Amino acid sequence: MLTLKRLDSADARLLIEGAAEKARAIGVPMCIAITDESGNLVAFERMDGGKTSSVIIAQDKAYTAAAARKATHEYNAANVPGQLAFGIHTEVGGRISSVGGGLPVTVDGEVVGGIGLSSGTPQQDMECAQAGLDHFLAKRG
Amino acid sequence: MLTLKRLDSADARLLIEGAAEKARAIGVPMCIAITDESGNLVAFERMDGGKTSSVIIAQDKAYTAAAARKATHEYNAANVPGQLAFGIHTEVGGRISSVGGGLPVTVDGEVVGGIGLSSGTPQQDMECAQAGLDHFLAKRG
Amino acid sequence: MLTLKRLDSADARLLIEGAAEKARAIGVPMCIAITDESGNLVAFERMDGGKTSSVIIAQDKAYTAAAARKATHEYNAANVPGQLAFGIHTEVGGRISSVGGGLPVTVDGEVVGGIGLSSGTPQQDMECAQAGLDHFLAKRG
Amino acid sequence: MLTLKRLDSADARLLIEGAAEKARAIGVPMCIAITDESGNLVAFERMDGGKTSSVIIAQDKAYTAAAARKATHEYNAANVPGQLAFGIHTEVGGRISSVGGGLPVTVDGEVVGGIGLSSGTPQQDMECAQAGLDHFLAKRG
Repeated sequence: MLTLKRLDSADARLLIEGAAEKARAIGVPMCIAITDESGNLVAFERMDGGKTSSVIIAQDKAYTAAAARKATHEYNAANVPGQLAFGIHTEVGGRISSVGGGLPVTVDGEVVGGIGLSSGTPQQDMECAQAGLDHFLAKRG
Repeated sequence: MLTLKRLDSADARLLIEGAAEKARAIGVPMCIAITDESGNLVAFERMDGGKTSSVIIAQDKAYTAAAARKATHEYNAANVPGQLAFGIHTEVGGRISSVGGGLPVTVDGEVVGGIGLSSGTPQQDMECAQAGLDHFLAKRG
Repeated sequence: MLTLKRLDSADARLLIEGAAEKARAIGVPMCIAITDESGNLVAFERMDGGKTSSVIIAQDKAYTAAAARKATHEYNAANVPGQLAFGIHTEVGGRISSVGGGLPVTVDGEVVGGIGLSSGTPQQDMECAQAGLDHFLAKRG
Repeated sequence: MLTLKRLDSADARLLIEGAAEKARAIGVPMCIAITDESGNLVAFERMDGGKTSSVIIAQDKAYTAAAARKATHEYNAANVPGQLAFGIHTEVGGRISSVGGGLPVTVDGEVVGGIGLSSGTPQQDMECAQAGLDHFLAKRG
């Protein structure tokens, strides 16, 4: 039997809180998805003005980051024609995302969830995902 | 009427055994999928610590290798913009994989199945897939 | 943070072992799928002669039992026109199964995985799933 | 290693020939799909006037009959609310068909393929599928 840790509902709210604060600061309303360590959704918020297409994209980024334990921008770096990982973005019915903005949530060296942002540029999505992570790690006590 | 060979359940276990042994040796827990010659799953093992996203990716690599009778890294080499095979990885609902780690299982010149590995780098996945193949060919007697 | 239990690779093998033994006893080769508590595949075996269509059906039964924490035959009983749960079998892209043969794997009152059988009649599938569960609970020590 | 039989291209043509002859006799142009024993398409003909939606339905009937080794009208009889197999028709992404018109192709007690008809009433589809089967068994020599 394995024993594992998974972020809970309160953890997910902290992650969203930090990401949304950054999104407001840069003036880009976002879709924010938080998944558990297996990639299943725990919490989601579409800020007023967030893009409709981003509803799915944010979830896919969070899924990828959690389930593959890898930031989506890392997949982006590897997903280049001629490199062996090229084409990874169409796997799992296209749910594997290689667009920046998905980060694994790691506590004590263990991936406990994922955060995915979408609606801005990938760079903005990445900044807000990181802000969510920073806020969560600072506040979870 | 055609007559064909297909790996059986015992063959599949040998393939998994060899791949898992290599995966343990390099310290990367893997998802290991074995399909028959048509690409349908015969056996699967997620080693403790294997990635959740790799559950599907390993199966898709094995499917591709068996059904297309081609190593996924060979598709990778051809899946380059400007070459005529580019885009092959989105075919069959995205099940065609061009990420290294899937190998056809060939006996007496006939493809009888496929093996797909996922959770490591594509290079690690390829090494473990090959180890599974080597073990199977050595032990099947 | 949540702490949860999940069956490991050795647990999955015990479940398969018990189910396969029963399947051999009744002379019906089966597809046997074991998922973790979130419904993601941990291990799979298609016994020689198991049906190709059952490769997916067995996985969907195990997914349903684990993720919904409910035996698929319980969904079956509720999935009747005129009752409020009717139509549940088309949810999650059709992965929710209301065909008998999927059972949650429960340890110390916690669902840690799922087992799904397919290739026989639903009654046979249910018997073999139960045999897998019984064997696992007896042998896990 | 397993050894199995699979219908070949000439067998598939015989099956289509017999089914199409019956379809012309009853004045209902049909879609006719022939799969191998694993449910993958071997041959297909849309007679002039065959329905567009039947292109997929015929394939799903043939897939079901071959992969599950069961006539689709048998699934129909079992797919009744309150019975344990109810809901089977949405499995495998909805590819399992419980509409009459799909028959396994059995030679020497072994399922070597499937035939699926669509465009008429289920009764007409069943008659034409049976006619394909009869013609094949009579002519294959």
